[in-house]
Amino acid sequence: MVKQVSVAVVGATGAVGSTMMAQLVKRKFPIKTIKFLASARSAGKSIEFNGATYTIEEATPEAFEGVDVALFSAGGSVSEKLAPEAAKRGAVVIDNTSHFRMAEGVPLVVPEVNRHALQQHKGIIANPNCSTIQMVAALAPIREKFGLTSVVVSTYQAVSGSGIAAIEELKSQSAEWDKGRDVSASVLPVKSDEKHFPIARNVIPQIDVFEDNGFTKEEMKMINETKKIMEMPHLAVAATCVRVPVVSGHSESVYIELEKEASKEEIFEALRLAPGIVLQDDITAQGYPMPIFAEGEEPVFVGRIRQDLHNKKGYHLWVVADNLLKGAALNSIQIAEAMLEDDLL
Amino acid sequence: MVKQVSVAVVGATGAVGSTMMAQLVKRKFPIKTIKFLASARSAGKSIEFNGATYTIEEATPEAFEGVDVALFSAGGSVSEKLAPEAAKRGAVVIDNTSHFRMAEGVPLVVPEVNRHALQQHKGIIANPNCSTIQMVAALAPIREKFGLTSVVVSTYQAVSGSGIAAIEELKSQSAEWDKGRDVSASVLPVKSDEKHFPIARNVIPQIDVFEDNGFTKEEMKMINETKKIMEMPHLAVAATCVRVPVVSGHSESVYIELEKEASKEEIFEALRLAPGIVLQDDITAQGYPMPIFAEGEEPVFVGRIRQDLHNKKGYHLWVVADNLLKGAALNSIQIAEAMLEDDLL
Repeated sequence: MVKQVSVAVVGATGAVGSTMMAQLVKRKFPIKTIKFLASARSAGKSIEFNGATYTIEEATPEAFEGVDVALFSAGGSVSEKLAPEAAKRGAVVIDNTSHFRMAEGVPLVVPEVNRHALQQHKGIIANPNCSTIQMVAALAPIREKFGLTSVVVSTYQAVSGSGIAAIEELKSQSAEWDKGRDVSASVLPVKSDEKHFPIARNVIPQIDVFEDNGFTKEEMKMINETKKIMEMPHLAVAATCVRVPVVSGHSESVYIELEKEASKEEIFEALRLAPGIVLQDDITAQGYPMPIFAEGEEPVFVGRIRQDLHNKKGYHLWVVADNLLKGAALNSIQIAEAMLEDDLL
Repeated sequence: MVKQVSVAVVGATGAVGSTMMAQLVKRKFPIKTIKFLASARSAGKSIEFNGATYTIEEATPEAFEGVDVALFSAGGSVSEKLAPEAAKRGAVVIDNTSHFRMAEGVPLVVPEVNRHALQQHKGIIANPNCSTIQMVAALAPIREKFGLTSVVVSTYQAVSGSGIAAIEELKSQSAEWDKGRDVSASVLPVKSDEKHFPIARNVIPQIDVFEDNGFTKEEMKMINETKKIMEMPHLAVAATCVRVPVVSGHSESVYIELEKEASKEEIFEALRLAPGIVLQDDITAQGYPMPIFAEGEEPVFVGRIRQDLHNKKGYHLWVVADNLLKGAALNSIQIAEAMLEDDLL
């Protein structure tokens, strides 16, 4: 008999939180009890889950008593404050924010890539950044066979990564087609930043705020998280992260250099056998991944695979996944499932 | 006194042709006479130019008698047939199609980069591909100071590069927001290819048809044309070309490796002094190029400049330009202006 677990969801009403709830149901996660926690302001409100109505409780430290697994997606400051309290009370926290990702002693996990890292957990597991998850899922099976020395990625990221308000903004801007650059904008690129730009009919080369080195925080997440998840601190990684007018589904143009030469057929084979990956690469029939078809789907889709024309160890890939599913909610639940299977819950 | 020239425009009603006409007027190109040529089917129709009405004539070989400069943008097969006829009759052809670009003896020119190549012309000059023009314009001033050994580019290309029908398709698909992946598509990625996919709310990693090596024709254009224009046959160039739901304005995420180390300030300086380039890079004030603001503008905008974190000779750039202007019509007229100044017309 499968063990049943007590679950707490913190931040259930956001884009990731609501997708996480849907995944718990869809994947028949063995729930003994479930509770929904939020700030005092939202406590007392009702929330629907799997056909029943629950009352949202205030997320106090004590609310985590008796909880086996706590799924956090309510922003970095909430995680900072409450994840250690939950862990202290014996819950395993699976945190969707960036707050603990690079912290020493916090496993940062994509189960297909570094499931073994869960063994070292001290109560908090971090779920990686959406754009990182799909990339490392695609790179890991290739690395395993042929090694990996460098990665240069340019992303095409959907607005849902910025939450429900960004989806609404794209929708309302699209309706105002004739206004072009003069449509109003108040969410993207970064809600809290000074300037906002239209995303409809545009692409914005800024996701999250800038760091002093000229990279954005999103780009640094991809760079640092990739090294941590792949356990390759010296891997050369570079990223340019760009928002595009797509609802859900991040796309990535990835150039990699391998340690060993590999034929295209060998790369195909490595990806075909990899868990969670769908190889979608048929240039004779215009077969390649696209976000509009990845939305709502669980796998990471990989295509446009081709050997570089100047470097036989160089390969170009096109990687697409639903950023709310494998990029966030699904990966979180997969972490919980892996911990259950590995007797860590 | 400036020499006055007799102009013929072949393919005036397309997206590029009509922009070319507007540029002739805007830039006060010294026109002695102008005629508009098209297939027999369109001959006899009227066309407006600079406040006057002209009758479109049939594009026969004889129609180029007495023409000094013939601007072609009516498709590769029209150029193939008629450009040599025009050249034979003493006209200088500036061809916007890809037909002659890689041909021996045909200069492929971005005036800021290789104006001197015009001297070798034999009657036909090729205007490079839109996505190539803006990239080489940005790379040339950097190459001049610091050398260049490799280029990896991922593009974010606007639909107007595929013509007026593609713009209309994006517009009608955007109006059908709720249909998502089920909106009808008949133009993109390639009108003549078998499958068509929605571009609204999507990105399509195919521009032009596939070649056997897995790269698309558009990607091979960028690779081969860059080498030819920069006169660097051994430069390592790789491209991934992607269509995005933007009307006009191609964006490019470009990773380059230089021969010599350079500081960010030195790269800034090289670009600041370069003709036709606007440096737009201020991370403290969210200053970077975007297509929605480049549309209708003549320069090539460059920003997001940052040194690679693992390779001191590596730099990342973000390059944006209006694909119908610098990417096509403007560059063609600039070629004609340069030839006039250099006594080649």
